[in-house]
Amino acid sequence: MSLIVQKFGGTSVGSTERIKNVAKRIARWKAQGHKIVVVPSAMSGETNRLIALAKEISPMPDPRELDVVASTGEQVTIGLLSMALMELGLKAKSYTGAQVKVLTDSAFTKARIERIDENRMRADLEAGYVVVVAGFQGVDAAGNITTLGRGGSDTSAVALAAALKADECQIYTDVDGVYTTDPRIVPEARRLATITFEEMLEMASLGSKVLQIRSVEFAGKYKVKLRVLSSFEDKEGPGTLITYEDDPKMEKAVISGIAFSRDEAKITVMGVPDRPGIAYQILGPIGEANIDVDMIIQNAGVDNMTDFSFTVPRNDYAKTMQVLEKQVKGHIKASDIRGDNKVCKVSLVGVGMRTHAGVAGKMFRTLAEEGINIQMISTSEIKIAVIIDEKYMELAVRALHKVFDLDQPA
Amino acid sequence: MSLIVQKFGGTSVGSTERIKNVAKRIARWKAQGHKIVVVPSAMSGETNRLIALAKEISPMPDPRELDVVASTGEQVTIGLLSMALMELGLKAKSYTGAQVKVLTDSAFTKARIERIDENRMRADLEAGYVVVVAGFQGVDAAGNITTLGRGGSDTSAVALAAALKADECQIYTDVDGVYTTDPRIVPEARRLATITFEEMLEMASLGSKVLQIRSVEFAGKYKVKLRVLSSFEDKEGPGTLITYEDDPKMEKAVISGIAFSRDEAKITVMGVPDRPGIAYQILGPIGEANIDVDMIIQNAGVDNMTDFSFTVPRNDYAKTMQVLEKQVKGHIKASDIRGDNKVCKVSLVGVGMRTHAGVAGKMFRTLAEEGINIQMISTSEIKIAVIIDEKYMELAVRALHKVFDLDQPA
Repeated sequence: MSLIVQKFGGTSVGSTERIKNVAKRIARWKAQGHKIVVVPSAMSGETNRLIALAKEISPMPDPRELDVVASTGEQVTIGLLSMALMELGLKAKSYTGAQVKVLTDSAFTKARIERIDENRMRADLEAGYVVVVAGFQGVDAAGNITTLGRGGSDTSAVALAAALKADECQIYTDVDGVYTTDPRIVPEARRLATITFEEMLEMASLGSKVLQIRSVEFAGKYKVKLRVLSSFEDKEGPGTLITYEDDPKMEKAVISGIAFSRDEAKITVMGVPDRPGIAYQILGPIGEANIDVDMIIQNAGVDNMTDFSFTVPRNDYAKTMQVLEKQVKGHIKASDIRGDNKVCKVSLVGVGMRTHAGVAGKMFRTLAEEGINIQMISTSEIKIAVIIDEKYMELAVRALHKVFDLDQPA
Repeated sequence: MSLIVQKFGGTSVGSTERIKNVAKRIARWKAQGHKIVVVPSAMSGETNRLIALAKEISPMPDPRELDVVASTGEQVTIGLLSMALMELGLKAKSYTGAQVKVLTDSAFTKARIERIDENRMRADLEAGYVVVVAGFQGVDAAGNITTLGRGGSDTSAVALAAALKADECQIYTDVDGVYTTDPRIVPEARRLATITFEEMLEMASLGSKVLQIRSVEFAGKYKVKLRVLSSFEDKEGPGTLITYEDDPKMEKAVISGIAFSRDEAKITVMGVPDRPGIAYQILGPIGEANIDVDMIIQNAGVDNMTDFSFTVPRNDYAKTMQVLEKQVKGHIKASDIRGDNKVCKVSLVGVGMRTHAGVAGKMFRTLAEEGINIQMISTSEIKIAVIIDEKYMELAVRALHKVFDLDQPA
C-alpha cells in the first residue's frame, strides 16, 4: 500500500465526462489499496477565460485580485471531482489551497510555496478518503489567496508529495510520457522509460511542455519520485519515470532527447566598449523590466569594442528593444542595436554527453550538411543549444533525431 | 459621512461592462465621503452554470462539494469589481466569506450566518478602501466553505450591515423599488416609497422576487435600514425604503400591494378520521422529506371524517404525492388523495387592513364578479391569500389592483 499523489491537467478534466473518467481511474488505484491525494487543474480553457474577463476590466489587473479570480478555476474542479468520486461510492473530500493550507509567500500570480500543513490530509487519508486538493493556489500568511503561476498545479502536486512523503507523484497529462522529441514533428520519436531529473529540467525549460519546470526543480530538491502518464489511455501505461542520478540502475544513452522552442528572440548590441560591468549595464535594465534573459554571448573584442548578444522570450521582444533604445543605447554609447524575432532554439539533451566526446561536433556537422546557419551556441554539461532561423526548426530537429539514433530503442 | 453597505444582484454585474458601471456608481457614493462595503452576487447565469456542471456529475451532488463549486461565482465577481474600482483610482480590496470571516453553521447549501468578524473590514474602511465582500457564502467553524442558499447575497449584505452597524443597506437590483404588484402584469403598478418590514416579508415570501425573505427577516431582527434601488438607472433614485412600524412618519394605505405566485400545488387528503394528531400524521412525513408546506386547511368534519388540504411548492408536487401514497394513505386509512398543480396564489398585503374592516369581503366579491372560484383561503393580520386556478391569475391581480386603488398615488 502506497501513498500516491496524482495530478490531472486541464485537458484531463476538460469536461464533466472526462472528470468522470478521471474518477474511475482514481477508483482503480484506490481499489488496489493505495492512499490517494489528487490535484486537478482547472478545466481546460477556464483559466484563460477568467484572465480574459479580468483583462476586459483592466489591462493590468491588480495581482491580488487576479489571483482571487483565477484561483476559482481549480476550486470548481476539486468540487466536481469529489462529487464524481462519491458517485462511484468512494469517500472524497476537497480542499482549496487556503484550506489545506498551502502557505506561500505574497508574490501574487507567481507565489512560491513555503510550507504545507499535511495534518488534515493525513487524517482524511487514514479515514479512507480520497483527498482532492486544488492545484495552482495557496494562501499567504495574511490569508490572501495566491496563485503559483501558469502550470503551477504540477508544482502543487510535487510539493504535496514532498510534504506527505508520498511514494510517487504521478503527473497525468495528454501524452503518455516524455518523448525523445515532439512526435508531431518527428513521427519516429520514442517515449523514454526514464529520464534524469537534470535532463528533464533541460527538456522542460527548453520547450517540452510536459511538466512545468518549477515542479521538476521542486521534485529534485525533495527527491520526489515523479512519473508522467497519460490520462487518455484506458490501460495504465508505465509513462516516463524521472530518476535521480544516484539511481544505480541508470544506464543512459548519449542523448536522451531534442527540445526546441519558437518562443525566442535574439538581440545584439553592437559596438559596445569591452570593459568590466558592461554586461550589467545592458542586462540590468532588462531585468528590472521583468524580462527573463536566456542565452547570453559576448564576443571577444577587437579595439576594445565588442558585440553583446542575448535571447529573450519572443513576447518580450518589443519591450526589450524599447528598454535598450531608451535606457541603454545612449548610456553605453553602443553603435547599434539589432534584433531578430524569427529565430528558434534547438537543444540536444543528455547526461551521456558528459562522457562522450564529439557530440557537439556531430551536431554542428549535421546542421551544416542541412545548410543551416548557427547564430548562437550555448552549452552546459548535459545540453548543447543552438539558435537558428526558425524556418529551419523542423528540419534541424528531424536531422538531429535521426543522426543521434533517437528513433532506435535505447 | 455614512457607512453604507451596497448589494448588487447578478444582472447588475452580469457583464464586465456592467461591472464597470457598478464601479462608477460606487465611486460616486465614495466621492460623497461615504464609507462603502459592496456585496456583489455572481454574474447572472453563473451560479446556474456551476450547479448544472455539478448535476452533470451527480444528480444529487454532495452538499459540501456543491458549495465549494457554487461559491466560486461570487469569488470571481469580487475580484473583477475590485479591479474595476482600482481602474477608477479607488483603493479596493476583496474578501471571500472565509476571509472576512462570515461564520455560519454547517448546513451546506442553506447555511445560516452565526457571526461576522468586522475587524478587517473596519480597518480597511478606515484606511480608505472600498471593501468588496463575496455574497452568498461563508465558512463554518471547521473551515468548510458554505453557501446561504439562493438569493443569499441579500442576506450577506444585511448581515454585514448589521455587524458594521451601517447607516443604510442598499439593495441594487433590476427594478427601481418595490411595486404595488408586478408591472409586467399590471402596467399601472406604482413604486412604493416605503413599505413596512412585515409587508415586505409577506410580499417577498409570496413571490415578489425583489428581496430574499431571509434577508428581510435579518434586517427586521437587527433593525437594518434597508433600501431597494435600481442599478440600471443613471440617476440615483430614492427606491423603496423598508420601514419599521415604530416609525412615526408612517401613514399607510389600506393595501400596499398584491403578490402572486405560480409556484404552487394543492393537495387534498380525502376522508381522514377527524381526530387529534391527524395533521401530524399527514405532514410529518412531508416535513421529513424536506418539503415546505405553505397553506394548511382542515375542513370541519362530518361523521368524524374530514378533508385535509395543503399547498407545497410546485416542484415538490410529485415527491409529495409519492410520500403520501407510500407512507400516509394506508396508514391513516384516507379514502383518496387528490392533487392539482395548476393553481396559483394571489395575496393582498397591507398593514392597513388591520384597522379597516371589509377588505376580505371586497376581495372575495371582486373575484366572484370576475367568475373566479376560490379554492383555499388563508389570512394573517396583514395578508389575505387565496388559491385559485392559475389561468385566472393575471385577471385576479388586475381586478384587485384596480378595486383597491393601487394605481392611484397613496
